[in-house]
Amino acid sequence: MDYIRDCGLLVEEHLKLIFRNDSEINEVLKQSMEYSVQAGGKRLRPVLLLSACEAVGGEFGSALSAACAVEMIHTYSLIHDDLPAMDNDDYRRGKLTNHKVYGEAMAILAGDGLLTHAFYMLSRCADDVSPEIVCKLIAEMSYYAGPYGMVGGQAFDMQGDQSPNATLEQLEQIHRHKTGDLIVFALRAGGRIGGADELQLEALKKYGYDIGLAFQIQDDILDITGDESKLGKKTLSDEKLQKLTYPHLLGLEASKEKVKALTESGKKALLEARIPKPERLLDIADYLVYREF
Amino acid sequence: MDYIRDCGLLVEEHLKLIFRNDSEINEVLKQSMEYSVQAGGKRLRPVLLLSACEAVGGEFGSALSAACAVEMIHTYSLIHDDLPAMDNDDYRRGKLTNHKVYGEAMAILAGDGLLTHAFYMLSRCADDVSPEIVCKLIAEMSYYAGPYGMVGGQAFDMQGDQSPNATLEQLEQIHRHKTGDLIVFALRAGGRIGGADELQLEALKKYGYDIGLAFQIQDDILDITGDESKLGKKTLSDEKLQKLTYPHLLGLEASKEKVKALTESGKKALLEARIPKPERLLDIADYLVYREF
Repeated sequence: MDYIRDCGLLVEEHLKLIFRNDSEINEVLKQSMEYSVQAGGKRLRPVLLLSACEAVGGEFGSALSAACAVEMIHTYSLIHDDLPAMDNDDYRRGKLTNHKVYGEAMAILAGDGLLTHAFYMLSRCADDVSPEIVCKLIAEMSYYAGPYGMVGGQAFDMQGDQSPNATLEQLEQIHRHKTGDLIVFALRAGGRIGGADELQLEALKKYGYDIGLAFQIQDDILDITGDESKLGKKTLSDEKLQKLTYPHLLGLEASKEKVKALTESGKKALLEARIPKPERLLDIADYLVYREF
Repeated sequence: MDYIRDCGLLVEEHLKLIFRNDSEINEVLKQSMEYSVQAGGKRLRPVLLLSACEAVGGEFGSALSAACAVEMIHTYSLIHDDLPAMDNDDYRRGKLTNHKVYGEAMAILAGDGLLTHAFYMLSRCADDVSPEIVCKLIAEMSYYAGPYGMVGGQAFDMQGDQSPNATLEQLEQIHRHKTGDLIVFALRAGGRIGGADELQLEALKKYGYDIGLAFQIQDDILDITGDESKLGKKTLSDEKLQKLTYPHLLGLEASKEKVKALTESGKKALLEARIPKPERLLDIADYLVYREF
């Protein structure tokens, strides 16, 4: 989809400027952070943030700092997830993981640095929106990305991994927090910056959890049926790591049906809340179902 | 000093409430975060924050959320510093380090969780001060604790450690960022919450860097001359790790002199800026020179 690619490239251009030509910062730390920030990926979260801002009638440009912030949070979480003590991955998106290039200590610091600086980037929204809104953005980012959100999801994941008889409910709890929460933050942040009312923010949240779960189930499906060259990573990794997945619990066909049902439910939420320009968010939902990587 | 102890205990009472009786959060993650938050210590940073707020004429109570936030940042940094890939410490303050109790993966997550939730706590200052001030607090915490501040200092430290011919300037750069920056943030945050003007904020910064460096040199001195039972950790650890220290570069006596000179210079900055109630900050500066742990 051209829109997602173009929007992602715009975010990448902005991400490149964050630590550029800055002699105040430790050079190796900077390189290590930039290595992972610039390692590509779909830029799904910032694209959703910018699209939500536009969908409610806001200005694209006023949401760029927040878009960078959410991608920095996502990137830090990948760096820490890949560490030997966590998932112990050597490759990510076809490139060596951060700790394989810079060592474990620098990878931990690069993650800490990106996480902390994401809040700096978010505080810079104060140039475009009121300080009241910035305070709400800060509270929501720390809530959805922290112990009650994404970090909590990672903790549930670690424990769920080890349990051979985990339930569908437990799996949904893991994904709701690990993947859904940051996507929901991105959408609500974009919505808030664009001037969304409470009803619209709730619809963006419903849409976010639905497509977030659909996205995760699709990831599980692609890990079985996908093309390694398109994915940029090895397939069947979940089975190798004995990770609990949707296809494992529901079967492949029922998992594909669930992806479609969630996508429709998310789209419906946007339409019911009368979001003025929902087209791009609707397209992104469809794209996520039909993607091959 | 009774004031530091009482003030530290008050902060501890508030820290205990943060994740209490909360079923939304992963139980092991919560235990792991609380284990380190409640592991004692001098609570120097929150005590400085509260004291700075009072020193400029502010209300003690309005700064408690920020005081918890800065202690959570400090605690996360200790958890990550102690990891096997970093300093590889088994004990801290006489207790097992976080990863020795909860494992490396959970320790990484506990650090990430505390760092993220610190921003949530700081955003809660909005109950007591204006949203404009909260935005400035957020920007400063991310600046002083992030890649330009404490995380950067840790990166410089890692590289400095490995260099046998590092200079005094390099060592001061490490400590300025690794220890000084978070202390300066604490003081400026307390000052801001208490209504300090720019001149007073600058004086708090000067005081902070001076006593921060004095504190660090005193740590280096105590690592050589201190009493293990009072310190709660083994002495001569710097030598064992071949860490560059002030006593190593300047000698023990000159290091002691430098601690005293920095302390006086910091106190003078407060007096020159006509901070209305500087007494406690002056006492804390003296306490730091004469402490035995």
